[in-house]
Amino acid sequence: MQAVLEAVRATREARLKELSDWLRFPSISSHPERAADVAACAAWTAAFLERSGLRQVQIHPTPRHPIVTAEWREAPDRPTLLIYGHYDVQPVDPVSLWRFGPFEPTIHEDRMVARGAADDKGQILMHMQAVAALLRVTGRLPVNVIFLIEGEEEIGSPNLPAFLRERGEMLRADLAMVSDTCMWAEGIPSITAGLRGLVALEVELIGPDRDLHSGSYGGAVANPVEILARLLTTLKDDHGTIRVPGFFDDVVAPTPEERARLAALPFDEAAFLQDIGVAGGWGEAGCTLLERLWFRPTIEINGLWGGYTGSGAKTVLPSRAWAKLSMRLVPDQQPERVAARVADHLRAAATMMADCVRIQVRSVPGGGHPWRLSADLPAVIAARRALKESFGVEPVIIGEGASIPVVADLDRILGIKALLLGFSLPDARPHAPDENLHLPSFHTGTESLVRLLYHLAA
Amino acid sequence: MQAVLEAVRATREARLKELSDWLRFPSISSHPERAADVAACAAWTAAFLERSGLRQVQIHPTPRHPIVTAEWREAPDRPTLLIYGHYDVQPVDPVSLWRFGPFEPTIHEDRMVARGAADDKGQILMHMQAVAALLRVTGRLPVNVIFLIEGEEEIGSPNLPAFLRERGEMLRADLAMVSDTCMWAEGIPSITAGLRGLVALEVELIGPDRDLHSGSYGGAVANPVEILARLLTTLKDDHGTIRVPGFFDDVVAPTPEERARLAALPFDEAAFLQDIGVAGGWGEAGCTLLERLWFRPTIEINGLWGGYTGSGAKTVLPSRAWAKLSMRLVPDQQPERVAARVADHLRAAATMMADCVRIQVRSVPGGGHPWRLSADLPAVIAARRALKESFGVEPVIIGEGASIPVVADLDRILGIKALLLGFSLPDARPHAPDENLHLPSFHTGTESLVRLLYHLAA
Repeated sequence: MQAVLEAVRATREARLKELSDWLRFPSISSHPERAADVAACAAWTAAFLERSGLRQVQIHPTPRHPIVTAEWREAPDRPTLLIYGHYDVQPVDPVSLWRFGPFEPTIHEDRMVARGAADDKGQILMHMQAVAALLRVTGRLPVNVIFLIEGEEEIGSPNLPAFLRERGEMLRADLAMVSDTCMWAEGIPSITAGLRGLVALEVELIGPDRDLHSGSYGGAVANPVEILARLLTTLKDDHGTIRVPGFFDDVVAPTPEERARLAALPFDEAAFLQDIGVAGGWGEAGCTLLERLWFRPTIEINGLWGGYTGSGAKTVLPSRAWAKLSMRLVPDQQPERVAARVADHLRAAATMMADCVRIQVRSVPGGGHPWRLSADLPAVIAARRALKESFGVEPVIIGEGASIPVVADLDRILGIKALLLGFSLPDARPHAPDENLHLPSFHTGTESLVRLLYHLAA
Repeated sequence: MQAVLEAVRATREARLKELSDWLRFPSISSHPERAADVAACAAWTAAFLERSGLRQVQIHPTPRHPIVTAEWREAPDRPTLLIYGHYDVQPVDPVSLWRFGPFEPTIHEDRMVARGAADDKGQILMHMQAVAALLRVTGRLPVNVIFLIEGEEEIGSPNLPAFLRERGEMLRADLAMVSDTCMWAEGIPSITAGLRGLVALEVELIGPDRDLHSGSYGGAVANPVEILARLLTTLKDDHGTIRVPGFFDDVVAPTPEERARLAALPFDEAAFLQDIGVAGGWGEAGCTLLERLWFRPTIEINGLWGGYTGSGAKTVLPSRAWAKLSMRLVPDQQPERVAARVADHLRAAATMMADCVRIQVRSVPGGGHPWRLSADLPAVIAARRALKESFGVEPVIIGEGASIPVVADLDRILGIKALLLGFSLPDARPHAPDENLHLPSFHTGTESLVRLLYHLAA
């Protein structure tokens, strides 16, 4: 193991170069015009795994973006690890707010800045490089490993559940490992024991059959933009508490252990808020900020638009207005059920204006189930040990407000529990301009993954 | 006069060709990148007036788009008419909703379809062609005429008031004529006796200092898009009545004569609504639809946007949100005062969220005062006669919900009352896709303007 760790340390420059090469692909899965870039990125991923000595490297086409798999079968009696990651990335607009080109990876201070640096190329590459180092130095692995690297995570993994069902035999494993979360803080290694689910809706409000002159019609008829603002406002009360009927029906309260861990975490709310440039939080009454993030569901307006948005003025009474909504879910909320309740609420609210506007609420494919892990799994013990040996600090067990649908899907479909080890920092800015990866954590984290492969075999 | 009328009838094809030529200029005054097109359109306008035999044709530069003037001084004892119009046009988006290219003038059935066909090139050209015909056939005019054709009407005529003040001597006139309104209905010639004023604001709401991942932050902090929707919702109650403190303070109620004219108009509200594809109106409680349009002020959201508006999904909690608002005003509301009250209301509403969002409310240059005309002016009598002789029907006196700031400015700055004769139809779609001009009204209207020049001299 020491020889492998030394090899990892000795190849830092080369491994950063590999990271840069991968980050250059604009593999934005939600933009159809980027399909060729996504495919090229999949090919790079497969070539990397092939070069590293993995076997059965395959690129599996799907109706949209391909899935890359590879494996190393050490011995049937060894535990089998399914390492999941994704090579696709979020869109990059507004590009003008990036300090460097989002696909021109740049090392600035101790960060690698690029779209995908943290979410998720940088983090899955740590596993790929740890395995590559083991194979290069020792010619073998302590455990059996399967890589499963998809290209549709940022659009909700629409084709992954079917793939899991069809390839269940090939993917059979004792444990999954996913690094797509972040550390609690710099220097504090973290295991994530909960994820929120996700479901999304698109709303369109249709009023007059054409854009109207706001002078000739203003005051006479309803403005769809204004009515949409009114409808969206009914989703919550003035304090941010959701008031959609039935929305909270299936929500499971945290256990006493979960509450105790939450209370024990060194959380500086003021610093959390200051980091994003606001003085106060806003949300459901009666819940702490961390509780809202990890144990309570949300409704967010991801986008809202209608009318004239260009330069200068246009005195128009718009014909239509649009919104994109997403709901973050907690156990045991069901995505389809929650989406139906929000859609029903909006449709019901719009009936009062049925003479003036028509509402269309469309479900958006994708989304995922919420998930929680019990912290007494043997794999968690092994991970705590590997992390402590590498970072020199006892890891914390945390929650995560974001969603990684595959984690719940692996459990629901294949019965495989996942271990979530995140190595990006809280200010990694995933989904936002200047996304970045903290390089000291990247390097130490890669060493911890080498250790973990040994400890899991013990 | 008969010879002139015959000449007008005999040149219909040539005059439609002139209209098409003018409409081809994409003279969108609000788009800085169109400045050269606007200037070229001004040059065409001046050349037309020059060719028509007008004197002192001039293109006056302004800080933005030029003003074109020309004149014919028949005799000092004749009345002097100031004919106002504008050669600039509204933006054309969404272009995809146009049946024909907005700057490829197309005659479809009995309409000329193009941006500017009704607002205002088609209508001011009627005056230009009537005067041209008189000069060509008779070599003189019954009255003195000054043309004042600007290129900034659609951006609120920012440089016209200063021009009126500086050139007051050159522009001195007994009466102004403006054709930038519409007829009450096909075949019913109309004189417009009221216009609403206009003032606009831009609102920006600034929350977190960057776009955030909606999973990692959703539920913890306020979303500026959501808060902006909430703030805008406070501008009106559930029935559409404005509840901004002091908003109605200076509103003058209609006179008994105005109420009587309003009640006497053959107005089919159901047909009005059906024409724009809605089943019901929406607006201030206790007011009829026409009263809301002509005698009550409004607040409209002309544009609202924030977050992700592209294809696919993006689970973002946006950093900022924006809205464009405009207020239509009635006598004696003052634009600056109304804008300040709306801005104050929004700022006050935002103070409850001051920990989470900062609000910036910016005034938009331009706008205009509201205006009403008393219907007993001698010029109104002359206009009724000319319209009745040409259309064969008694004209109606109507209001107009839209704004033509110059009309109030001519009165306030130069003391010149304006006669508003509109010849486009109610479905002319100004500011919207498929803007069009009804050609039979264009031709009959041009004849009525020839008659009016004679009657005003009588």
